[in-house]
Amino acid sequence: MAGSVAKVPYLRLRVDRGSSVSFTRLDIVAAVRREHESGRLPAGSRMPPVRVLQHQLGISKNTAQSAYEELVAEGLLVNRERRGYFVRGATRQKSSTSSGAAAPALLRISLAAVAPQVRARCADTIDLCSVFIDPELLPRRKLAECFRSVLRSRGLHAAYDAQGFAPLRTLIAQRLTRRGLSAHADDVIVTTGSQQALDMVTRVLERRAVATENPAYGIGKLLFEMNQMQVVGLPLDPFAGPDLSVWRKMIAFARPALLYLTTTFQNPTGYSYTTAELMQLIELSREFRFGIVEDDWGSDMLSFSEFRPPLRVLGGDNVLYMNSFTKKLLPSLRIGYLLANPATREALITAKQVATLANPTIVEAMLCEFIARGYYDAHLRALQAELDVRYRACLDTLASVMPADVRWTAPGGGPVLWLELPGRVDLQRLGARMVEKGVRLDARLAAWFFGEPHLNGTRIGYAGLPAAQLQRGLEVLAAGIREEI
Amino acid sequence: MAGSVAKVPYLRLRVDRGSSVSFTRLDIVAAVRREHESGRLPAGSRMPPVRVLQHQLGISKNTAQSAYEELVAEGLLVNRERRGYFVRGATRQKSSTSSGAAAPALLRISLAAVAPQVRARCADTIDLCSVFIDPELLPRRKLAECFRSVLRSRGLHAAYDAQGFAPLRTLIAQRLTRRGLSAHADDVIVTTGSQQALDMVTRVLERRAVATENPAYGIGKLLFEMNQMQVVGLPLDPFAGPDLSVWRKMIAFARPALLYLTTTFQNPTGYSYTTAELMQLIELSREFRFGIVEDDWGSDMLSFSEFRPPLRVLGGDNVLYMNSFTKKLLPSLRIGYLLANPATREALITAKQVATLANPTIVEAMLCEFIARGYYDAHLRALQAELDVRYRACLDTLASVMPADVRWTAPGGGPVLWLELPGRVDLQRLGARMVEKGVRLDARLAAWFFGEPHLNGTRIGYAGLPAAQLQRGLEVLAAGIREEI
Repeated sequence: MAGSVAKVPYLRLRVDRGSSVSFTRLDIVAAVRREHESGRLPAGSRMPPVRVLQHQLGISKNTAQSAYEELVAEGLLVNRERRGYFVRGATRQKSSTSSGAAAPALLRISLAAVAPQVRARCADTIDLCSVFIDPELLPRRKLAECFRSVLRSRGLHAAYDAQGFAPLRTLIAQRLTRRGLSAHADDVIVTTGSQQALDMVTRVLERRAVATENPAYGIGKLLFEMNQMQVVGLPLDPFAGPDLSVWRKMIAFARPALLYLTTTFQNPTGYSYTTAELMQLIELSREFRFGIVEDDWGSDMLSFSEFRPPLRVLGGDNVLYMNSFTKKLLPSLRIGYLLANPATREALITAKQVATLANPTIVEAMLCEFIARGYYDAHLRALQAELDVRYRACLDTLASVMPADVRWTAPGGGPVLWLELPGRVDLQRLGARMVEKGVRLDARLAAWFFGEPHLNGTRIGYAGLPAAQLQRGLEVLAAGIREEI
Repeated sequence: MAGSVAKVPYLRLRVDRGSSVSFTRLDIVAAVRREHESGRLPAGSRMPPVRVLQHQLGISKNTAQSAYEELVAEGLLVNRERRGYFVRGATRQKSSTSSGAAAPALLRISLAAVAPQVRARCADTIDLCSVFIDPELLPRRKLAECFRSVLRSRGLHAAYDAQGFAPLRTLIAQRLTRRGLSAHADDVIVTTGSQQALDMVTRVLERRAVATENPAYGIGKLLFEMNQMQVVGLPLDPFAGPDLSVWRKMIAFARPALLYLTTTFQNPTGYSYTTAELMQLIELSREFRFGIVEDDWGSDMLSFSEFRPPLRVLGGDNVLYMNSFTKKLLPSLRIGYLLANPATREALITAKQVATLANPTIVEAMLCEFIARGYYDAHLRALQAELDVRYRACLDTLASVMPADVRWTAPGGGPVLWLELPGRVDLQRLGARMVEKGVRLDARLAAWFFGEPHLNGTRIGYAGLPAAQLQRGLEVLAAGIREEI
């Protein structure tokens, strides 16, 4: 691929709003000047395309273009025909790939570090930050039994239902209804994990503006960013909870179309909202007219099979509700679901169709069998009991090994808690040192936080490891923290 | 489940720790008083059960109970025998659900008619337009055998590979390489049918402008439209082929970032490009600097295991290549793949991750087994032989039953051909009359065409029906056309 053809990634700028209500030409000019003066604008860099600025700042094409033209006149930028605006100076040499011919470049995204990390797992490492359940606790034998039964009886369906295998949707609706969450199978859409549910909802959004927690579920954040949505991160302190007066101000300013909220055992903080907080959020959604999608992934990981009223119950069917079986049964089954409502159902199914048409019926039929036989409930009871033991062992270990000024939350269930370190501990360096000692710590704060992190910690997953391994990992971690302090 | 058993949701409270190391009775009392004073403790609400507080706060049963008893004594709570502690006062009436309140509107898309049609299939109808293979020809028994084998041996993997099950990627790369399409497993991404492959590619596009055939693959067209991309439809006449001088002008004007082209047995026309046309398209892609994604879904449906050099071979790895097993094995398996290149691979995997994270490993492992045992090749040979018979029978029937001025193409393979009717036949009306006679004809030209259709016909699928049924369906259709002329 010749250098001339390669697509040049463009800078992302922070543009601050001046005194006026919306962004102006001067705000952009000031932002570029500021970056330039601070030396963070390397010669040859490509500026954000005009349409990106338009979208990002909600301004007209003219405003963006006239800002750039002013900067060209000042001599800061140059306009390269059809290729966009660049910082004046030598073009950086692009060393692109393989083949010979002038290959058009397709990519628009800058690669986040998420992909390789999610995929590569090292077997010898104690992974302290997994949100997954220890594979040893998963009911593989019974799942295999149900697969065999489905292969014998109903067999392999040639056709598929884009909405999801109908008997499975019925079972899901029944289970939700028993939890006080009145649901009809027609409103249930089976998805490829909860990730697809979130993707479907973002696809049908009227305005491409969304709010979510900060820190956020990392791959949700990546989804919003790849889809070039405006995202506002609402600060969540896992110790004190959300400051809803701050949230209110941010929402009033950003006017998101949707709030994506993980109501139980939020990933990565492990936080669960109080009922009072959820009720205030419903009020906010009515005041500022945004929709809500509630991610309830953690509810089945609660002990005692008790439950708290989800947002869907408090807010009615304006709240879209999503949940998943992947964390409780077997991640590789990839089955989640979205509870929609009559007004959004068809659009959401269409959104699923354009993305994947449908998901493998055989897996959905197997899960249906697994639930219908009562295996799922029996499994959940056993799983919850074991997770309770691990949870308490984790708290005990933390109390006995951690230095005095390390804090952690006690989420009471779910797979993770938040471990907050003293500000003087450099998390990146600690993470790197842990790797050398065979312990994986998630130190990629940029994957969770919007802007500068207000926390200096990480999630600890106590569901993924046998107690002895978890203890050893935490001991190594505590020793590492002591060295950093 | 009886009504009496239905669970009453309980509040979640925030309890802050006082000065002591662990939670005390007073902490709970203070938390309830605080919520009560702020008016956020609705009368009649259920308090968290004692055992939940125990678990959540790591306290004894006594501590929790004595806190509640103190609040009962204060008159804040009441203890309802066997049902738990409740906030004093009448049970709050739940005013939640459905419509009523100002429900924020989420939807941005206008609903295309595709969704219901794809989903609803009537068993008694002769479906003349299906692109699917007759379920009777699909190797369900052998697929079940491979599922069982995988469940026995490698079992159910807990983890998943976002790129796709590695041994399957290796087999796919080997098969492609044998076809002259040099491929490496690292560049293969397994997808949920070819639909997901197309979705991934559109997600990473630098500019949201795409070109495709007119008429287009319907759900691809819907995907582009839902994603609010600029789409240019390049007119394809299934009898004459594409007029590439017209395409050139349209491309020069629209400057698409991507051309999505179905190179063999295009859906809906059944058209396959000549090698000369493909080479001209490669030249156009270099001149106008657009990428190409080649959909090769039909190649395995060619008899004689012949193949034409796909665009990927002619154009090098600048061409992304996609294919699918769904049309040949079992639609409900939903397995396709994308052959990327080193420059785009990571971005495309990330695009898959934000959409679905990964697909069910068990299905990918089963397919791997199916191919490795040689079942796939044996099945293809048998399938191709049978499809050849049906194809020829279809052509014979058409020749014997159709009026003189009806024309059809002879694609030479694949599941569909194009049937073109005289201009005076009203396709919509014909479609409606056919339904009455138990024959389904796809008359939704708007799903395929951009703007005013330049054709007045529909696709005929000869792979989905046994010869006798197809013949009956075509006879009914011919009679209907005669009535219209």
